[in-house]
Amino acid sequence: MIKRVGFIGLGVMGKPMARNLHRAGFTVTVWNRSRAAMDELAGEGLRLAESLAALARNSEAVITMLPDGPDVAAVVHGPDGLLNHMAAGSLLIDMSTIAPETARQLAAAAHARGIAMLDAPVSGGDKGAIAGTLSIMVGGDTEAFERALPLFHAMGKTITHCGPSGAGQVVKACNQIAVAVTIAGVAEALALGTAAGIDPAIVLRVLGGGLAQSRVLELRGPTMARHEFTPGFRVRLHQKDMGIIHATAAAYQLHLPFSELASRHFQQLIEQGYGDLDHSALALTVGQHG
Amino acid sequence: MIKRVGFIGLGVMGKPMARNLHRAGFTVTVWNRSRAAMDELAGEGLRLAESLAALARNSEAVITMLPDGPDVAAVVHGPDGLLNHMAAGSLLIDMSTIAPETARQLAAAAHARGIAMLDAPVSGGDKGAIAGTLSIMVGGDTEAFERALPLFHAMGKTITHCGPSGAGQVVKACNQIAVAVTIAGVAEALALGTAAGIDPAIVLRVLGGGLAQSRVLELRGPTMARHEFTPGFRVRLHQKDMGIIHATAAAYQLHLPFSELASRHFQQLIEQGYGDLDHSALALTVGQHG
Repeated sequence: MIKRVGFIGLGVMGKPMARNLHRAGFTVTVWNRSRAAMDELAGEGLRLAESLAALARNSEAVITMLPDGPDVAAVVHGPDGLLNHMAAGSLLIDMSTIAPETARQLAAAAHARGIAMLDAPVSGGDKGAIAGTLSIMVGGDTEAFERALPLFHAMGKTITHCGPSGAGQVVKACNQIAVAVTIAGVAEALALGTAAGIDPAIVLRVLGGGLAQSRVLELRGPTMARHEFTPGFRVRLHQKDMGIIHATAAAYQLHLPFSELASRHFQQLIEQGYGDLDHSALALTVGQHG
Repeated sequence: MIKRVGFIGLGVMGKPMARNLHRAGFTVTVWNRSRAAMDELAGEGLRLAESLAALARNSEAVITMLPDGPDVAAVVHGPDGLLNHMAAGSLLIDMSTIAPETARQLAAAAHARGIAMLDAPVSGGDKGAIAGTLSIMVGGDTEAFERALPLFHAMGKTITHCGPSGAGQVVKACNQIAVAVTIAGVAEALALGTAAGIDPAIVLRVLGGGLAQSRVLELRGPTMARHEFTPGFRVRLHQKDMGIIHATAAAYQLHLPFSELASRHFQQLIEQGYGDLDHSALALTVGQHG
């Protein structure tokens, strides 16, 4: 049973996830690029690492929760990196959303050092991270998955072993495709209804009662209709994920025209200065007049 | 209270709808271009009209359930048409899915003859028509809507007054946008997962537990993953609706890029001979390799 956990990356998601591990009884040592989040957690009884190397040496499992693949690779590799200091037989779990191919490469490098690695991206947002109700999509060996389960249960509610290394990231990418394209569909439905002078509440009610029903429609439809785009999940982060989707699809010579269209619209929003709005702000660029 | 109802158009949807009106106690007279469906309903106690004009003269309300706008216009106008023979003060209800603009024009022509007209397209498919659980989206005057309610309740479960003439058709168009685009999103998510070797059941389970959840994912995801496309709602009918959507959006100078992309894919399916597959066959053209 894993007891000592290192946690790297105390952002909007990472901080509550580390806190939930601590509350579940794990001995959690944290490390973060900037100091404020570390001090906050130190005040709650979590331990602060002197260095990445020290955290790696003292942990049975290390979790990374970082913005993107290059950030994960930066802490994994190199003389001061995790692989150079974690013990053989220990467990590395990357919960960031990164490209499946990068996840596979990192897992292979870890395996070569006798360290098991899981990719375990999440969905559920900061609310899910705080409440400990994240959906966690896991790729990697079954043995490592089972060893990591007590940690996952401290942070999430729905834990799914999706397949070998990279599979968690692939399923996360699938999720981001469906969410982005569904947002676009709801946005265009609302755009037509609004142009024709129909009360958006009627459109949402009717559509919600049939095959057009979706969680996007239910959760975001009312705010989209009012053009309220408080995040939630930011446009620029979804666009980062669209880049992962594009690269992954390209590796399989797969053409995903709706995802590509969604990505062009997210890019347009970013260029217009809307990158920090909720991703449902797709409603600002689809259904345009002219 | 309306008692004598004329019903025109006994197709896959119209036949069970007329039957449900009869079972609810209305005196239903039917008229259809081809004979077989009329004879079937005559055997169940529904009355057969000698002509469209005779049906119009003998009904307090006339319902049309026809393939498209020109079919409706053909029975409404002309010397033998409904408007020339229905009594002033009677009610005309078009439950076909046609362009909102056509619905408005027909309602104006009816109004000029002292006949109230509602547009009342449905969703829920042949299963909903048989079970009497259709969702009915109604445009037109409140007075006419309230007079028609007992008829609607005999055929549907969710009855929504969406606004003035044409509003029912607009909301139906909004519904068809959201359904088509959501199908595309689910199709691309499954395509990426499948290309990467992930069990589609895992993709569907994970996506169904979060923001990517949709009724399309739940009802059609499993069959899409198996490339089973038994209708259901046929590609060529959804493409007919995309034509209505395109024309309606154009009237408001509205550009709906995701709907247009879906329409191009439906068209491609029709050209490949797949027009009679279920609309979830979008999975055959999105996520293509090459």
